[in-house]
Parts: sequence; C-alpha cells; structure tokens
Amino acid sequence: MRPRSLLDVDDFSASELVSVLDRAVAFRESLPPRDLLAGVPVLNLFFEASTRTATSFTLAEQRVGADIISFAPGASSLGKGETINDTAITLSGIGVRLIVVRHNESGFARRLADCFDGHVVNAGDGTHAHPTQALLDLMTLRQEFGRFEGLRVAITGDILHSRVARSNIVGMRALGIDVTLVGPPTLLPPGFAGDGVRIERDFDAILPHVDAVMMLRIQRERIDVGLLPSLEDYTRRYQLNRARLRALRSDAVILHPGPYNRGVELTDEVLDDPRSRYVAQVRNGVFVRMAVLDALVNGAPVAA
Amino acid sequence: MRPRSLLDVDDFSASELVSVLDRAVAFRESLPPRDLLAGVPVLNLFFEASTRTATSFTLAEQRVGADIISFAPGASSLGKGETINDTAITLSGIGVRLIVVRHNESGFARRLADCFDGHVVNAGDGTHAHPTQALLDLMTLRQEFGRFEGLRVAITGDILHSRVARSNIVGMRALGIDVTLVGPPTLLPPGFAGDGVRIERDFDAILPHVDAVMMLRIQRERIDVGLLPSLEDYTRRYQLNRARLRALRSDAVILHPGPYNRGVELTDEVLDDPRSRYVAQVRNGVFVRMAVLDALVNGAPVAA
Amino acid sequence: MRPRSLLDVDDFSASELVSVLDRAVAFRESLPPRDLLAGVPVLNLFFEASTRTATSFTLAEQRVGADIISFAPGASSLGKGETINDTAITLSGIGVRLIVVRHNESGFARRLADCFDGHVVNAGDGTHAHPTQALLDLMTLRQEFGRFEGLRVAITGDILHSRVARSNIVGMRALGIDVTLVGPPTLLPPGFAGDGVRIERDFDAILPHVDAVMMLRIQRERIDVGLLPSLEDYTRRYQLNRARLRALRSDAVILHPGPYNRGVELTDEVLDDPRSRYVAQVRNGVFVRMAVLDALVNGAPVAA
Repeated sequence: MRPRSLLDVDDFSASELVSVLDRAVAFRESLPPRDLLAGVPVLNLFFEASTRTATSFTLAEQRVGADIISFAPGASSLGKGETINDTAITLSGIGVRLIVVRHNESGFARRLADCFDGHVVNAGDGTHAHPTQALLDLMTLRQEFGRFEGLRVAITGDILHSRVARSNIVGMRALGIDVTLVGPPTLLPPGFAGDGVRIERDFDAILPHVDAVMMLRIQRERIDVGLLPSLEDYTRRYQLNRARLRALRSDAVILHPGPYNRGVELTDEVLDDPRSRYVAQVRNGVFVRMAVLDALVNGAPVAA
Repeated sequence: MRPRSLLDVDDFSASELVSVLDRAVAFRESLPPRDLLAGVPVLNLFFEASTRTATSFTLAEQRVGADIISFAPGASSLGKGETINDTAITLSGIGVRLIVVRHNESGFARRLADCFDGHVVNAGDGTHAHPTQALLDLMTLRQEFGRFEGLRVAITGDILHSRVARSNIVGMRALGIDVTLVGPPTLLPPGFAGDGVRIERDFDAILPHVDAVMMLRIQRERIDVGLLPSLEDYTRRYQLNRARLRALRSDAVILHPGPYNRGVELTDEVLDDPRSRYVAQVRNGVFVRMAVLDALVNGAPVAA
Repeated sequence: MRPRSLLDVDDFSASELVSVLDRAVAFRESLPPRDLLAGVPVLNLFFEASTRTATSFTLAEQRVGADIISFAPGASSLGKGETINDTAITLSGIGVRLIVVRHNESGFARRLADCFDGHVVNAGDGTHAHPTQALLDLMTLRQEFGRFEGLRVAITGDILHSRVARSNIVGMRALGIDVTLVGPPTLLPPGFAGDGVRIERDFDAILPHVDAVMMLRIQRERIDVGLLPSLEDYTRRYQLNRARLRALRSDAVILHPGPYNRGVELTDEVLDDPRSRYVAQVRNGVFVRMAVLDALVNGAPVAA
C-alpha cells in the first residue's frame, strides 16, 4: 500500500480533519520539538511560482525538522506524460519520502502520487484542489466560532476557476458547514449546487445571514475573455466594500486566500475592517502544514 | 597545494576507489552521525538544470551535516573566460570550502578547480565526465557480483556524447573490468577502442556474454542532425527490448543512468525486468556522494 | 514601533557602527555558538541575481543558526506598487522575522520596511545603497589602520551609479574619514561634494596622498550610452595600473567591491599587488553580516 497523501481534503475523514486541526492548534499554542520529521527528506516541487505558499511550507518543514530540498522547475521540465513515472521512481529511490507539489495542471498531484512511493502533499494543482489552504480556513473558522456544525459561510467570486473554493466546499461539507456560493453564472455554473451547498446570485441578500464570507480573487483576465461583461458590473454586484461591510453581521468574519486584487473583489476598507481574518489565516497556515506533515509521516494524531 | 577535487574518476587511484566504495557501502548499511562535514560550507552550482542529480547531492550533503548553499544560475552568468578566476577567489574568500558544479561546457569543472582554493566535485561537465555517476554504477556492480576483476560490461548507445560513458570507461578499466562499447560508428568512433576496451557493432553478438549492460539515453536530436539515419534503424540494431532480454544471461544486470527515453534505447519491459538495477543505482548514488564528500574533506577513508 | 532595519549605513549611529564592527571582529576571531538567531525565520529575497552577496548572506545566516528561506523571484513578481504591502503583511503573518532584500529599484528596501512587521536588511537597491558592503569595507580599513579618524580614502570610478559608493560615503563620513571622489563629470557630478567629501578630477594628483583607494567597476555600457567618450580615454585618466601602483604609498591599501572588469578600471597587476585587500573584504563580509543580523534581532551589541 502506498504511504498516505493529501491530494484533497477528503483524503482525511471528518474525524481525522478535526484531529489534524487539533494538532495544529496545539502547535500554535506551543511549538513542538524540532524532531517530528527529523531525517525525513522532503522535496518542495513548485512548478508554479509561489512566494507565499512556498514560504509557509518551508517554515512548517523547518519546524518539524525535515531535511528540505527545494526546486522551482519550469512546468515543462517534468510531468510530460510518460516521464512523471520515471521521475517518481528516481526520487523515491534517492530517498525522498514526501513531496510537496504545486503545478498548473489539475490532477498533477494525483498523477505524481500514483507513481511515487512516498507521501504527496498537493500545494495546489490547476483549478482542482488546494487542501492545506482549506484546512487553514477551517482552522480559522474554528478559532472564531469554536464549532463547525451549522455555521453558514458564503464563498464569493470566481468559483469556477478556484481550487481554494473547491477544496473548501469539500472540507466545509464534511464538517457540517452550510455553504452558499455567490457569483455570476459564468463563474459559478448551476452544477456547483448540491447537498448543503446552494447558489445565490444576490450577494446583498445573503450577506446579513452568514457567519463568514470568503472572498476569492477576481482576475481581470476574466473580463478580457468575456466571462465577465465589465469590471463595473462585477464590482456593483459582488465587490465587498464599505456599503456591504455594514450589511455583514458584527460577529461575522471575512476570509480571503490572498493575494488580493484591491479595487476588484474588495476595497481597502475590507482589509482594515476588524472582522478581517487574513493575518490569522496565513499564521494558521504554517501550523496546519506542520500538522499535515506530522499526520502523514507519523500517522494520524490522537484526537484531543 | 590545492585541496583535492574529483573532476573525473582517475583523480582516485584504484585502491582509493575501492576505499570510497567501501565507505559508501558502510553508509548504506548504517547512516553515520551527521557531523562528518559539520560547519563545512558546500556550494551547489548547477548551471545546467537538474532535479535528480541535484536532489541526490543535496541529500548526501544533509546526511554529512554540511552547510548547504544552492544556486541554479544561468550558464551565462559565470564562467565567461576571465571572470571564473575572480568568482573562485571570491567564493573561497567568503569561506566556501567545496563546490559541486554542473555545467554544459566540457572542462568547466577543471577550470574552476584550477582557481578555487577548495574542493571541487564535478557533477557533470558537457560531454566530458560525470565521476559520481560512474562511482554509483561501480558500487551497483560490486553489490551484485562482489568483485570487479574480469567482469564483462557492455555500454550501449551514444558513447560519443556521453559523460557517463567516458567516466565509466575510466573507472571500469582502473578496476579490471572488460568493457565493450556498442553502437553505430557515428555515435561511437573507432578511437574509443583501447586497452581492455573494444568496440562491437553487433549488439546481439555480445549480449549473451556480458555480466552487465549499461544502456545510454539516445536523444532524438541525433536523428535531426543526421548522426542517425532513423529511429527505426537505431532501435532495430541497438534497442534493448523483449527479444534481446531473452538473450541476456539470467544473472546479468541492466544499468541505465536515467532519464530514460522509453521506446528509444529501451522498451517498458526492460524497466520491469528483474535484472534491472535502476533503483539500486539511484539509491547508491546518495551513499557514494556522501563517501566522496567525506574522502575529499576529511582525507581518504581507511580501506575496510 | 517597527523592528529595526538596516536600509543604509546611517540607520546605525557612529557608536553603533563601531559596536557592530567590534562584534564582527570578535566573530572573525572566534565563531559564536550557532544559536544567535536560532528559530528565527530569515527570508532571502533576491530580485536581482547574485551569487556572491547571496552566498555571503546565506553563510552568515547559517552561522547564527537562522531558519533560512531563499527565493530568487523575477523582479516583476512582487513589489508592483500596491501589492508590496499585501506581501509584507503575508510574510510577517507567516512568521518571517527578517528579510534580506536585493532589488534593482532604488528605495525598494525602504518601501518593504515601511509595511513589513519585521527587520529588513538592504542587500542592494538600485543605485541607492548597499550598507553591508560599506560595513565590510570599513571593517577592512580598521583591520589595516586601527582607526578611522583622519584616514584619507579615494573612491574612483562610476560614483553616479554606485550604491557601494553612496553607502561608503555615508559610513566613512560618520566615522571621520576624509573622502575624495575621483572620476569624470559625467559619472561624478559636482553635487556629490560636501562636508568632508571633495571631488578630484585628477587621479594622479591624489594617488600619493591617500591611505586607501577604492576602485569601482566601470560598465562598458556607460560608453555605449555616451557617458564616457571612449574606453581609452577613461583608462588613460582613471585606470589603476602598473604606473599608478608606483604612485600609491607602500602602506596604502586597494579596495574593490567586485566583480572586476579587468582591463577597464584596473589591470591584472592590481589584483596581484600585496596592497590589494579584496580577499580580506569578502572574508570580512560574512562576519559583518553575522554582526548585523545579531544587532538587529538581539539588540545592539555591547561595545568592546
């Protein structure tokens, strides 16, 4: 049997998710000894450039004492069909035991895991999944509300192209959160609706009723290719701004995976708003990644 | 006197080669304490992109406790004639004590060693040499046969452009292995023949008589530039495939430096064949590199 | 209040400069325990390619036991107006406590420091400043002369485009060194003159009277864009060569920040001259950077 990988959030059961988050909270409260992954070679393979996520993973790996090897190869140098298998065999032969991989191709992390004799952590693959981002969002929600069951969260923006949204939907549903997806039909097709997940086109209608709103980045290219009629139209309907902040409950929180497009999906006031949890999110990210590495390599942590 | 470098296999005498391989075997059986190169700054300078070799060296460096600095500069940013000297003076002045260097220019490692006041390990220079690859191949052969003297090894493919072949010929001859080079005249000129090294154009004639066959990668560009008439012609004469596997002795082994071109120099069956030693090769590579670092920095290990 | 940064030499008072240099000298005499920055995440962000300076910083960071994360992003991927703020917030949220930054934009380090909740060390920003280079030059001068007050130093070459010259002028003046700038008006406008800093167009006139001469690199591009009439004209007036070496006092020293353009600002004889201190400069660079990291993170060291 292959060692366990984290390709998407549903590689963990609901109780395992809670257990990993418990472990992450324990790490946040008190850093563990730096030997949880002592002597374990971890390879960071970021085919897509990333300063934020790569920094977060590297810090997490240092704090568990892993042997870290980092490459930022061009997307062309690996993974072209037949050769990913040979690369995976080589890397496990060399002794690499865990690969953190980011690639612009949806499904790349799974293809790697299918032929690598070690753990794989998906740090983002195309528009498919970004499970550690979802875990840090869940950790931030629990830090705020102390529970998941019955929470109402709106995810707003370009759901169609968002691996963050996809992984969050999976994780939130597993933990009993009611999810409302908000956005125009071109960026949020009806097929996204499902059990516990509903679609809402009117941001203002849902805003007063949610515990949290997660704003996704809107790339201006969506307008160029005709998926959005105009920036003005989008911001009028979906931008979180001063007016909409007033509609949001005082005990609700605002999440954003970063990086922002200020003036597009949100305005400067949002980032200064006391309900914004952006800093908590990135801070939690390091601890969640430590917990994931620990859970995969050393086995599921004991629930608190 | 300059500190010792490993620019090609013949920088070690035959007894030193055996001693380094003994040390590598000891490391494979039991990892040494991580202090063999404690506090020794090692610089990885890979002007040619490499995930495999760079990962192997990095892991080896971690396991001997070196202080690792890694750069992947473009080939243009250094080594342009007059400046390599100044760079070498700078790096030794800063305190770098060992440089692992890969460059697409044959002889680059020697040029660096000529002006750097520290150790240089050649991780591949143009078509010239790749000594640690040859050492890991020798280690794999000894693991298999327990001896070198009198072994018969065929190296098949693009000998002309292969730094792996060149270094292996040097090392195999030093240790008493009979080498047969196999390939078409355009990729294997008659001048390669020599004492203990013969040329054979008929792969099928030699195949039943060897203890090991080392398959080299064939780059499709050789056909484009007219060095090979066609892929079909090459594969018909020199590809290791199902039919030729039957001709190979049951106790023989198959080596390949990787990466493969499946369907060119070999077919999928070769990789699944129990005589293939590819995984052992890459695994041995880390231990051989640890032993080389140890031998250069701390002096020749005592023979077992 | 923000944690302290080193954006240019004048971020330290004169007594702090001396204190940091004392600490660097102590480190050169005896390496400290590797725990001065234990557990402190340090991010190397080199938007401009650099092997020398990046190697020196990395070695310094290893010797104080920092957790090192290194990126060499393209200059385009960060720092475009509005986003540098978000990046800084993210990195401090993740837990990065110190950023070493190099960028081709003058003022970039300050812009980063203005929004990053941690220490910033400027490793060179455009033509503005390069404070650790100036500190290592000062350390080398003190090693030679045992004092600063009253020393006479000539800085020769392309002052206009040199961040090294700018930072050295600031540091030398703070410590009482008399500075003479030498070069043609196009590369050394009259405005550089000031208290304790004078301009001299005639290199030969000043050469016999200085304790040290610092030669700056001349880029051939200056000729292409018309800032210099010809290479011949420049070398005739300002090149340090065999004839001018004879004019230099026997107890004077020659500094150069590297890399050289041999045959332009200096000839080979200069590098072989016993008064050349290039190796001492690069060696001192590591210790000065260790002392800077220690001073910023752990507070100003006690003066010896």
